[in-house]
Amino acid sequence: MKYEPINIQEKLSKFEDHWSPRIVAEMNDYQFKLVKVQGDFVWHNHSDTDEVFLVIDGELGIEFRDGKVTLQAGEMYIVPKGVEHKPYAEKECMIMLVEPKGVVNTGNAGGDLTAENDIWV
Amino acid sequence: MKYEPINIQEKLSKFEDHWSPRIVAEMNDYQFKLVKVQGDFVWHNHSDTDEVFLVIDGELGIEFRDGKVTLQAGEMYIVPKGVEHKPYAEKECMIMLVEPKGVVNTGNAGGDLTAENDIWV
Repeated sequence: MKYEPINIQEKLSKFEDHWSPRIVAEMNDYQFKLVKVQGDFVWHNHSDTDEVFLVIDGELGIEFRDGKVTLQAGEMYIVPKGVEHKPYAEKECMIMLVEPKGVVNTGNAGGDLTAENDIWV
Repeated sequence: MKYEPINIQEKLSKFEDHWSPRIVAEMNDYQFKLVKVQGDFVWHNHSDTDEVFLVIDGELGIEFRDGKVTLQAGEMYIVPKGVEHKPYAEKECMIMLVEPKGVVNTGNAGGDLTAENDIWV
């Protein structure tokens, strides 16, 4: 049988839009998603799940109500469930998210930046 | 509050032994583990979970009973639950695993390469 690796850079080359997660893999009921981000996202939280941010390229900030964290390529952070956060990036930044299937990107906030869910690349 | 990123290279610099996963993060009931590998692992499977392999540095092979996949840095593969596999690396290779808390590295096989579980770095 033929087994093919999932190449992150190759997947990133296949889309351009910001804040619109693309699924690249599923493990049990969890999904690995690639996202290109630039500018400010909305304040939101996910009431029923932690959320993993792993920076592939660029610099990502995650603002919290009482502080912030800045992630470079090769760095990750886990936002605990229920914690309000606002991702942002001054320049375009490539990230990988890991979260349960069905999580909506804007969590409890909704609004214009809510992306269509379950798009594979 | 002070928020600290998890830096993958910095975590990798803190241990040397092969085939001995170190936990760097937990998301819900899943864990992110770093492993340094070299040589052949044992044939095994995990009957109740998929397993994610993400190569950080080097080249990782995963042999299956009917084929194999070779992963470079920036590539990932998900071994479905129950599928027999044997990871191997000719030269030292750094990988990240994602799997549910409590998964034993040698799965159903056991043996000398079975690592102590739940070691954080």
